[in-house]
Amino acid sequence: MLITLRPDADVVAVEAALKGLGLWTTRLRDADGAARGLRVEPHSAPAALATLRALPGVADVWRAPSPHPRVDAQAGAAVPLPGGAPLLVAGPCSVESPEQAHAAAALAAAAGATALRGGAFKPRTSPYAFDGHGRAALGWLRAAADAHDLAVVTEVLGEQHVDAVAAVADVLQVGSRNMQNFALLRAVGAAGKPVLLKRGMAATVEEWLLAGEHLLTAGAGTVVFCERGVRGFDPETRNLLDLGAVALLKHAYRQPVLVDPSHAAGRRDLVVPLAAAALAAGADGVIIEVHPDPGAARSDGPQALDAAALVALTATLEAHR
Amino acid sequence: MLITLRPDADVVAVEAALKGLGLWTTRLRDADGAARGLRVEPHSAPAALATLRALPGVADVWRAPSPHPRVDAQAGAAVPLPGGAPLLVAGPCSVESPEQAHAAAALAAAAGATALRGGAFKPRTSPYAFDGHGRAALGWLRAAADAHDLAVVTEVLGEQHVDAVAAVADVLQVGSRNMQNFALLRAVGAAGKPVLLKRGMAATVEEWLLAGEHLLTAGAGTVVFCERGVRGFDPETRNLLDLGAVALLKHAYRQPVLVDPSHAAGRRDLVVPLAAAALAAGADGVIIEVHPDPGAARSDGPQALDAAALVALTATLEAHR
Amino acid sequence: MLITLRPDADVVAVEAALKGLGLWTTRLRDADGAARGLRVEPHSAPAALATLRALPGVADVWRAPSPHPRVDAQAGAAVPLPGGAPLLVAGPCSVESPEQAHAAAALAAAAGATALRGGAFKPRTSPYAFDGHGRAALGWLRAAADAHDLAVVTEVLGEQHVDAVAAVADVLQVGSRNMQNFALLRAVGAAGKPVLLKRGMAATVEEWLLAGEHLLTAGAGTVVFCERGVRGFDPETRNLLDLGAVALLKHAYRQPVLVDPSHAAGRRDLVVPLAAAALAAGADGVIIEVHPDPGAARSDGPQALDAAALVALTATLEAHR
Amino acid sequence: MLITLRPDADVVAVEAALKGLGLWTTRLRDADGAARGLRVEPHSAPAALATLRALPGVADVWRAPSPHPRVDAQAGAAVPLPGGAPLLVAGPCSVESPEQAHAAAALAAAAGATALRGGAFKPRTSPYAFDGHGRAALGWLRAAADAHDLAVVTEVLGEQHVDAVAAVADVLQVGSRNMQNFALLRAVGAAGKPVLLKRGMAATVEEWLLAGEHLLTAGAGTVVFCERGVRGFDPETRNLLDLGAVALLKHAYRQPVLVDPSHAAGRRDLVVPLAAAALAAGADGVIIEVHPDPGAARSDGPQALDAAALVALTATLEAHR
Repeated sequence: MLITLRPDADVVAVEAALKGLGLWTTRLRDADGAARGLRVEPHSAPAALATLRALPGVADVWRAPSPHPRVDAQAGAAVPLPGGAPLLVAGPCSVESPEQAHAAAALAAAAGATALRGGAFKPRTSPYAFDGHGRAALGWLRAAADAHDLAVVTEVLGEQHVDAVAAVADVLQVGSRNMQNFALLRAVGAAGKPVLLKRGMAATVEEWLLAGEHLLTAGAGTVVFCERGVRGFDPETRNLLDLGAVALLKHAYRQPVLVDPSHAAGRRDLVVPLAAAALAAGADGVIIEVHPDPGAARSDGPQALDAAALVALTATLEAHR
Repeated sequence: MLITLRPDADVVAVEAALKGLGLWTTRLRDADGAARGLRVEPHSAPAALATLRALPGVADVWRAPSPHPRVDAQAGAAVPLPGGAPLLVAGPCSVESPEQAHAAAALAAAAGATALRGGAFKPRTSPYAFDGHGRAALGWLRAAADAHDLAVVTEVLGEQHVDAVAAVADVLQVGSRNMQNFALLRAVGAAGKPVLLKRGMAATVEEWLLAGEHLLTAGAGTVVFCERGVRGFDPETRNLLDLGAVALLKHAYRQPVLVDPSHAAGRRDLVVPLAAAALAAGADGVIIEVHPDPGAARSDGPQALDAAALVALTATLEAHR
Repeated sequence: MLITLRPDADVVAVEAALKGLGLWTTRLRDADGAARGLRVEPHSAPAALATLRALPGVADVWRAPSPHPRVDAQAGAAVPLPGGAPLLVAGPCSVESPEQAHAAAALAAAAGATALRGGAFKPRTSPYAFDGHGRAALGWLRAAADAHDLAVVTEVLGEQHVDAVAAVADVLQVGSRNMQNFALLRAVGAAGKPVLLKRGMAATVEEWLLAGEHLLTAGAGTVVFCERGVRGFDPETRNLLDLGAVALLKHAYRQPVLVDPSHAAGRRDLVVPLAAAALAAGADGVIIEVHPDPGAARSDGPQALDAAALVALTATLEAHR
Repeated sequence: MLITLRPDADVVAVEAALKGLGLWTTRLRDADGAARGLRVEPHSAPAALATLRALPGVADVWRAPSPHPRVDAQAGAAVPLPGGAPLLVAGPCSVESPEQAHAAAALAAAAGATALRGGAFKPRTSPYAFDGHGRAALGWLRAAADAHDLAVVTEVLGEQHVDAVAAVADVLQVGSRNMQNFALLRAVGAAGKPVLLKRGMAATVEEWLLAGEHLLTAGAGTVVFCERGVRGFDPETRNLLDLGAVALLKHAYRQPVLVDPSHAAGRRDLVVPLAAAALAAGADGVIIEVHPDPGAARSDGPQALDAAALVALTATLEAHR
C-alpha cells in the first residue's frame, strides 16, 4: 500500500497522523528528491481507506487488490461444527481399532468435545512407520462419533481417497505437508464440504490464505484455518506455535480459526497452557490429541492427553465460555 | 538423557511406559545389534528421575548435569516488582521529555501498572535514528515514576552506563541485541540488582537460560526472562511471538517470565489479544508500550497503545486476577 | 550416537581423541555421578565405527540404525542424465508453446545442457495464476528436447498425471511443496523412473532423505536430491540457499545432488555466482531457468537467464570440467 | 522502490520490460481502479535509474534514499589485509599459550595465510567455559604473527578492551553476538582501524549493513563483512551458511566480504568445500580455524583443521588465484 502526497503536504504531519493510526511508513522520493509517497509496511494495523484518503495532505491511496477475494468474502464465518465457541475437537492421532475409537470418542465427549478427530490415513516421515488402517478406519471413526453424537474431522492424504473421506467426514482436513499440494486442494474443494486447512511448516499467512482461496475456488464449503506450529530452531518444543498469526487471522482477517497445540508443542505438559493461550489470542477452538492409553498409541503417544490431563483442559474451555 | 536397559528388559514395554509418561525416545543398539539404551528427545515432558529408574527393565538414567544451576536455583521466584500477578509494566518506547514521561506514567498507573518502562538509552538499527536522551532521561523517568508510585524498569546499553542506570532503576533491562553481550552481562550482574533479560532474536531457550546464568554468576538479583518474539519470516507481524517458550520457562523451568507483545507483533491491533495469550500461557505479566500521543512518539509510535486502547488491556488483566 | 566408557577410562583423554577426529561430545553421568557415556552431537564429522571402538577407554558405540537404508545403498550413484559432471539442466519455468520450447531447448543446448527442464503442470501459490498447458505441453517439451538431443526433466503435480509425465520424461521431478506428499511419492516411485526430489521449504536433511526413502521403497530409480533454498528471513533474496546441506549430502552421504540457484536467489544477477558456489560445494550439476525472452515469460521471468547471461554460466561450468 | 506510470502507459508492456531487466513487480491501483504504479520487490536485480526512467510508459521512479550512505561509499574497497585475493586468515579459536600461538602461526603461514586470527577474549555461551587468556594472549598473538610476517585479526568483546586490542590488531573483529551491540560498535569505530564485522545470528542484510554504517559513522576504517552462518533448523550443521547474502554483498553492494566456513558448518569434513563455495560466490577470502593439535584445543577443536586438512584448503585457494 502506498499513500501518495499532495504537493503542498506537510509530510511530517501526515506521518504523525499515520503513526497515530498504527501505520509504519517509509518515505519515497521522486527524481527531484521530493517526498511523493509513504510506503506502508505490512506489519501495520488495518485502517479504513476512507480515513486515510481524508487525511490532510494525502492525495490518494494506491493498493494491490486482495489476492484472495473468496477468503475475504467468508470473513465473519463461524467454524462449521456443532456447539458454541470455544470448540473442542478431540481424538487420537491414529484410529487404531473400533474399540480404541470408541474409547477415545467417549473421552472426547466427556471432555466437552463436539467433534472427533482421528487419522485413518496418516502422513509419516518414514515409509516404515504405521500409516493408518485406511478405509476400514473411516468406518470405525464414524461409528464411534455417532455413538457419542460427535461430528467427524479427518485428514485426506491423496486425491484417490477424497470420496471415501467425504462420505464419512463432516469436515475434511488437509495437513501441513499438503498445504500447497494443489492437486489435492482441487480434489478436496470439489467435494463441496467444509475444510480444515493446516498451515504449512514455513508458510506465510498470505500463502496460507491463498491455499484457502484454492479450496474455495474449487468449491469447498467454509475453510477453517488451523495453526499447528511452524518450523522453529529450539529442540525443546517440537514446533513453534505462532499465535501472532492466529490473532492476525481472527482480528484482522476475521477468519474461522482453530489451533492444534498438541503438534505445536509436542509436549503433553504444555498442551493445556497453549490451548488456553490460543483461545485468548482469538482462536474459535482447539483440536487436541487424546488417547485412552497414550502408552499404547501407535503414533504421537507422548503428546496425547489421557483422561486425567483432560480435566484441566475442560476447565480451561469452561473459563472461556 | 539416556535410559539404559537391563539385559532382560522388554524394550517395547519400557517404550510404552515412557510414552505414557510423555517421553519421546529412540532406540540405541550396541555392536551386536542389541537395544541397550533409549535416547530421550529434548521435546519430552519432564519426568522424575526416581520414577524413570523404578520402571521395570530400566537399568539407569544417564544425564548431563544442568548447565545453569544458578538459574535452576531461582525456580519458583516471583518477579521482583510490586503488585500481584498478572503484572503490568507500561511506558513509552523512549523517554522524550519530563512532560511526556509524566503523562505516560499517569496513563500506566491508570491502567493498573505497578512499574514504568521507558528508554533513556535506545538501541537503534540505524546510526541516524534518535537514540534517547541518555542520563537526563533517567532522571525524568524516575521522577515520573515516583509521582505515580511506580517502580522503574529501563535498559542498559553499555558497560559505562551501568552505574547511572542502576542508580535509578529497580530492574535493569538487557535488550535482545545484547542477550549474549557477555561484557555487559557481567557489568550488569555486578550491580547486584534484578534484571529483565530479553530473549535474543534467534536464541534457543538453553542459550537464554545460560545468559541468565552469566548474570547470576556475576551477582545479579533475580533474573526475569522476557519473551519479545524471535525472527520470523512473515512480513505481517514484526516478530514471531514464541509462547511455547513462555510455557516451557514457566511450567517446566518455573522461572519468572514477562512477555512483551508490543515488540512481538509490532501491531497495535494485536497487542491486547497477544497480552491475553501470554498470560494464559503462564507469563507473570506483560510489558507494554504506551504513549499519551502515539502520533508524536519519536520511536515505535505505531505499536504504542493510547488511553483508549489501554481500556481493553486493563480489562484483560482484570480477568486474570 | 553414544560412546560408552570403560570404568577405568581417562574421560578427558577420550574426549580429546574424539575432538581430534572432529566429534562434538557431551558427557552423560549415571546415578552416582560417574561419567559413563559421551553423547555425539549431530553436527560432528563422520568417523569409522571401528576407529571409535578401538580408542583406549571406549567400551562400545551405541547407535540408532539408519532410518533410510535404501538411500544409503545408492551412495556413490551418478545423476542418471547424459553427460559428465558438472551437469547442466536448463529450460523455461513454464512450457508456453511449441516455439518457445524449441527456442529454449536451442538455448539450453548451446549453453552445454544435456537435459531440458520445463513445467507442463505448474504449482502456483495463487489459484488465479497461469498453471501450465498440461498434457499438451508435455508433447511440446519432448519434441523440443529430441530436436536438440536433450533428456527431459519435468514436474509431476498430481497422482493422476504420473503416467502421462512418465511417458515423456527421463527424470520425474517432485517439487518442494510436494516433498512430503506421500501419496504422490508412492505414485511417482511406482513409475520406476529416476526422480529429482526438491527439498521442502523447511525440511531437515533427514526428512529429505526419508522422502527419498519413500520413493525408493515405492520402486523409483535413482533419487537425485535438489537443493533450491529454504525459507529465509531476508527479503533481498527469494529463498536461502543451503550449500551446507549440499556439501553434507555429497561429502557425508555421497548422494547425487543438483542445485537450483534460480529459485534460491530469485535474482538473475546472482544465479551464476551461486551456480559456481554450488559446484564448488560438491553438487553434480545445476538446474537453471532460461528463457529466450524473459520479458515475455508467463512465470518467473525476472529470474530466467537469457542468451547473454548464459555465456557466463557456460564459462563457469567449463572451469569445473 | 515504486515505478509510477504515465496515464497512457501500456502496463503489460512496462511489466514485460521490467521482467526483462530482472525486476519482480506488483501493480498498485488508485481509488478508481487504475494501475498507477508498480511496486518493485526487494529480491529484484539492480537496475540503473536512468534505464528505468527511460522506459516507455514510465513516469518516474520513487525511492527511499539508501539508509547506509557511508557503506555505499566504500563500494569497491579491498579487504585491508596483505596479499591478493583470495585471502586466507587462519588461526586457532582461542590463543592458549605462546607456544600454541607460534605453532598455529606457522601452520597458517605454511598454508598461505597472510593474517593470523585467534581469540584472546572469547564469547562463551556458558559462564563456566574457558573465555580466553585476555590481555596476555594479545601479546602472544602479536609475537606469533610477527614471527611469521602475518597481520593480526582478533575480536573485541567489551568497550573497556578496545584500546588494548587496537594496540596489537591490524583488524578488529566484532563477533556475531555483538553485531548490534551499539555501544561496542561506537567504541570500536572510534579506534579508527579496519573492522571485521560478523553477521548476527538472524540479521537481515540491511541490518548488517546498518551495523557497518554505525562503525563507519564512529570513525572505523574499512568495514569488512564476514558471513558465518545464520541460525538454521537442521541439527547436522551447526549454522546455515548463507552464500546468497555473500553474493549479494559482493555483486550488488560491492563490499569487501570474508566467509567463515568453520563456524558455519561446525564440521571439519565440510570446511574445505564450503570455503571453495564461498570463494565461488564472490568472497574475497576465508577465515578458518586451524590448530596444531585439535584434540588439545580448549574451544572449537572439532571444527579446527590440522596440518593434513590444510593441504586441501591450500589447493582450493590456489585454484582461485
